[in-house]
Amino acid sequence: MLRFALFGAGRIGRLHAENVSANPDARLVCVYDVNGTAASEVAQKYGAEVAPTVDAALANPEVDAVLIASSTNTHVDLITRSAQAGKAVLCEKPIDLDIAQVNRCREAIAGCNVPVQIGFNRRYDPNHRGVFEAVKKGEIGQLEQLVITSRDPSPPPASYVAVSGGLFRDMMIHDFDLARFILGEEIVEVTASGSVLVDPAIGEAGDIDSAMVVMKTASGKLCHINNSRRASYGYDQRVEAFGSLGMVISNNRTATTVERYSASATGVREPLLNFFIDRYGDAYRNQINDFIDAVRNNRAPSPGFDDGRRALLLADAALESLRSGRTVQLND
Amino acid sequence: MLRFALFGAGRIGRLHAENVSANPDARLVCVYDVNGTAASEVAQKYGAEVAPTVDAALANPEVDAVLIASSTNTHVDLITRSAQAGKAVLCEKPIDLDIAQVNRCREAIAGCNVPVQIGFNRRYDPNHRGVFEAVKKGEIGQLEQLVITSRDPSPPPASYVAVSGGLFRDMMIHDFDLARFILGEEIVEVTASGSVLVDPAIGEAGDIDSAMVVMKTASGKLCHINNSRRASYGYDQRVEAFGSLGMVISNNRTATTVERYSASATGVREPLLNFFIDRYGDAYRNQINDFIDAVRNNRAPSPGFDDGRRALLLADAALESLRSGRTVQLND
Amino acid sequence: MLRFALFGAGRIGRLHAENVSANPDARLVCVYDVNGTAASEVAQKYGAEVAPTVDAALANPEVDAVLIASSTNTHVDLITRSAQAGKAVLCEKPIDLDIAQVNRCREAIAGCNVPVQIGFNRRYDPNHRGVFEAVKKGEIGQLEQLVITSRDPSPPPASYVAVSGGLFRDMMIHDFDLARFILGEEIVEVTASGSVLVDPAIGEAGDIDSAMVVMKTASGKLCHINNSRRASYGYDQRVEAFGSLGMVISNNRTATTVERYSASATGVREPLLNFFIDRYGDAYRNQINDFIDAVRNNRAPSPGFDDGRRALLLADAALESLRSGRTVQLND
Amino acid sequence: MLRFALFGAGRIGRLHAENVSANPDARLVCVYDVNGTAASEVAQKYGAEVAPTVDAALANPEVDAVLIASSTNTHVDLITRSAQAGKAVLCEKPIDLDIAQVNRCREAIAGCNVPVQIGFNRRYDPNHRGVFEAVKKGEIGQLEQLVITSRDPSPPPASYVAVSGGLFRDMMIHDFDLARFILGEEIVEVTASGSVLVDPAIGEAGDIDSAMVVMKTASGKLCHINNSRRASYGYDQRVEAFGSLGMVISNNRTATTVERYSASATGVREPLLNFFIDRYGDAYRNQINDFIDAVRNNRAPSPGFDDGRRALLLADAALESLRSGRTVQLND
Repeated sequence: MLRFALFGAGRIGRLHAENVSANPDARLVCVYDVNGTAASEVAQKYGAEVAPTVDAALANPEVDAVLIASSTNTHVDLITRSAQAGKAVLCEKPIDLDIAQVNRCREAIAGCNVPVQIGFNRRYDPNHRGVFEAVKKGEIGQLEQLVITSRDPSPPPASYVAVSGGLFRDMMIHDFDLARFILGEEIVEVTASGSVLVDPAIGEAGDIDSAMVVMKTASGKLCHINNSRRASYGYDQRVEAFGSLGMVISNNRTATTVERYSASATGVREPLLNFFIDRYGDAYRNQINDFIDAVRNNRAPSPGFDDGRRALLLADAALESLRSGRTVQLND
Repeated sequence: MLRFALFGAGRIGRLHAENVSANPDARLVCVYDVNGTAASEVAQKYGAEVAPTVDAALANPEVDAVLIASSTNTHVDLITRSAQAGKAVLCEKPIDLDIAQVNRCREAIAGCNVPVQIGFNRRYDPNHRGVFEAVKKGEIGQLEQLVITSRDPSPPPASYVAVSGGLFRDMMIHDFDLARFILGEEIVEVTASGSVLVDPAIGEAGDIDSAMVVMKTASGKLCHINNSRRASYGYDQRVEAFGSLGMVISNNRTATTVERYSASATGVREPLLNFFIDRYGDAYRNQINDFIDAVRNNRAPSPGFDDGRRALLLADAALESLRSGRTVQLND
Repeated sequence: MLRFALFGAGRIGRLHAENVSANPDARLVCVYDVNGTAASEVAQKYGAEVAPTVDAALANPEVDAVLIASSTNTHVDLITRSAQAGKAVLCEKPIDLDIAQVNRCREAIAGCNVPVQIGFNRRYDPNHRGVFEAVKKGEIGQLEQLVITSRDPSPPPASYVAVSGGLFRDMMIHDFDLARFILGEEIVEVTASGSVLVDPAIGEAGDIDSAMVVMKTASGKLCHINNSRRASYGYDQRVEAFGSLGMVISNNRTATTVERYSASATGVREPLLNFFIDRYGDAYRNQINDFIDAVRNNRAPSPGFDDGRRALLLADAALESLRSGRTVQLND
Repeated sequence: MLRFALFGAGRIGRLHAENVSANPDARLVCVYDVNGTAASEVAQKYGAEVAPTVDAALANPEVDAVLIASSTNTHVDLITRSAQAGKAVLCEKPIDLDIAQVNRCREAIAGCNVPVQIGFNRRYDPNHRGVFEAVKKGEIGQLEQLVITSRDPSPPPASYVAVSGGLFRDMMIHDFDLARFILGEEIVEVTASGSVLVDPAIGEAGDIDSAMVVMKTASGKLCHINNSRRASYGYDQRVEAFGSLGMVISNNRTATTVERYSASATGVREPLLNFFIDRYGDAYRNQINDFIDAVRNNRAPSPGFDDGRRALLLADAALESLRSGRTVQLND
């Protein structure tokens, strides 16, 4: 039985609480949120206690692991304190928007020897993971090209954009992690292009809303990612891995398999599942289940802290490329 | 809050228990099974009691409704006693294999005035229901032809076949109900053909394993159903509704959207979801949720007792047609 | 070089003329039509002569083969005279609407020993033929069920219906031939249902416009065919062969592979190719090329005269079943 | 009637000759090839004469237009001489591998006032053109992202690679033209990445075999192109246009619509059409028909000389970017 403290009782925190409760090998022990009412609601629903403070939760000997689903600017602090308290950590992405902070956190927890997983749940989406596994098994021979399409259904408010860290650190960071996961080797070159095409307010906030990136690994594998903050037809999430012997694709999902034919069109399907709670519901559940299994069996959870750090390095490199008009080399 | 007694703690009973527990407006109160160990396991898992007898469960004033998931030959007795005890009833299909029994049950419960739902869950599959709704809204104009393909992944043992009531009453009965649901009017003619192509043991047991039926409604709508006891590629479950303005199809489901390309093939998908627990998991859940909602809001549940009876009448008519080589008229 | 006389210079005759001209091993020598202007146009376009009479065409020693594309009621006479003149024959379907006429023709040409092909061109559609070949190679193991969907884009005028021989002899006859071709064994039982759902004028003309048929072969293989005189989304032509090891499907065709996504729909394709000239253009060409090759290499052309006769026997059996409400046995 | 001289009687020249002959408004008058036998064969097949020299062909008053299908290094000379002789020109791509040559040709023919079309036939593929038209009609709102996938079935011999001008000028040049066509505005930035992943001999010849490019237009539209010299599953040719209101895709083509289901896979389709003669057969025909129509109606043919020049400018910019690791600006 793995016993959890939950930090953050917002939408994602609640989703995690539900998934923990549904796992027969895990239990939610306590919940902390700066908003006491939110903490109390979640605690009550899943038979847990409200922790008065983070320290109280970390001091609780019944807590084996922490789930960090609070705001991004608290992640580094909570990871550090939890690791130092000897708790296993599952922290929502990103670790932080500032690589210096991430590096400091890395040093601070270096000796703690606790399992840390970062919530890049797309690795656990059954469709994308199907691509990963096919590639790993050699089904397409040598992987040569990877193409990731990732478009949100609608843009966030400009107020969010302003504190988001920008498209590369906030949105494409998922795709950077997924790319590293499937490529199976480190990326050494990043080139980025971007535009403001969706909402001028995003441009006024200093960000872009449309982007195309090309990356290369040491062995020459090529990877393209495109992002848009708006796709009228729903949450567009596709992965295409192309290799010497073939291609494997993770396609989009709709709620049903219903297909319509009329005088004006055939093969008509519904719009795509609208956003990540629906599209990646299985992924959230699978990730937490795998974390529980990994910790219980002394297996290193994946993606780990360093995966979280490297995704941010790629986001920073993309931003530098966007600004400089140059391909950026990564040597780390 | 709707409080349930569960009769039958086998595979389907457990599935129902889980779905009842997941519904915030329902609770499992007690479980009865001739196998006390099974009853006990389910009761414990969902915080319910073991009922020592059916009578004890029906006498329990905390029980509002019963879930009948015991063997087919107990259904009529349990429906009758539950209805007479004033409990709402959700009974697995079929009501019985013998129409005379079904008719007696109908008389016996006629004055009870309790809601009764029969577990033809395909009406609640989101894909098939999408077809039903499109037809009902007039999206395809006047419905003219309905084609239902329904093939099991692998044949049951001959021992099961011998007591199953035969392909029409055991397997195609689901499709008869689904056909009535989508056609929206009563069927007046049934013609059936059948063969033993899958397993000679099924023929030796006096049954067929492959069948094609054509039916007609009073207004002339045509319906075709085909069944096979074996589909190598998984559980094949499709519905096609064709009308004056178009066509709407409920297609098959696979576990993922992964698609493969190689030197020998393109567009390759996985085999279909293997059987009804996977394929109709949503349908089981949606049906019980709708039953709970219907009873709580004094709405008649669907499909009701008479739907269960009419599906059996169609199965009997198909069997008669198979034996006589004639189209059978239904006047009831 | 195979040298042709063409009887009938209407739409289909012109199509045949074009296909003959495009074949490097064939040449159009002369054209006869009761409408001399039509004959003259076709003759001129393809460098052929106008034959003043049928007899003149058949007496021409330069003519090796005849293409019969005139009206149905002339087919038996022209087949008979052409065969007796020693010419190879490619005759449009059907041989005749009256089985007695067909039988007389069979006797009349029995001793002529000339190759005769009937224009059931669907055998030569690359998609349907792909199903035939997969079945023949054993890709799906033992064939168990065959489902043919065949719906015209729009109904013919009632005036045509009145002389057409009825839906079974005029429209489903193509599907009867295709069923025999793929089933690979003779059909022994036919059951038919039909309705007037598309156009009351068709009913007033004594015909049906919607039909469902189920047939069985000697070994128990089952076959379903459905027909409608109107499909709003285009010419719906599908074949599904189901067997012990799998299934193979010939799907519909659209003009392009363009797919649309919008706020209301995804995966949107065009309506289907509208009618047989487009849908079966390849089939017409492939059939005539195969006829030319067969005659030049002393190979029996397929489908032959007896295939044409058996398709009519099935159409007659379907009509008898529709009228009697009984399954009709075929013993021939 | 448009009367053609054909320069070059190789594979593509023959294809053009056939398409000219099939057009009722055009006629092949004469053929010139350095290989007299090849010229003679084509001339004979289509009822044309052999021209003893280029000059003789250009001096022939019966020649209205020339088709240039000879080797790339002859294009500039033949375009120049043909234009100066007052003939309309349809020249295979590319104009030349050297932009200085192309610019000189542009000057030389500037005053000739003859229609010139360059053979970027993908603009005439019905599928890709469907995307172009949907974009132009505003079906997807404002175009924001364009993704072109273009992979050859198998790599050319290294000997060809050495004289090909390299992947960007030889292969991706088609995609550059298609991108410009659909984007509907000029590209101002090009960034390229490339690798040798398919065949080391291609690397030894100084070229790459795998490439990813990102481009931007003045208004900020983004475009990605990926190329590979080898796709095991056939000739992969896809276009995806994404905009504010939706997406439109030109998908790949297979020879038939046959779909297979088995114990190991569902939805299985054939490998893609193997190469450009099959895949773009319609495009070749449609382009030449449009050229004939344009010249006969004094409409400017498309793509014109300047389109050919701009595609080469993009290829040169991609090569410069690949070498420099910088985004290259285009100001022309």
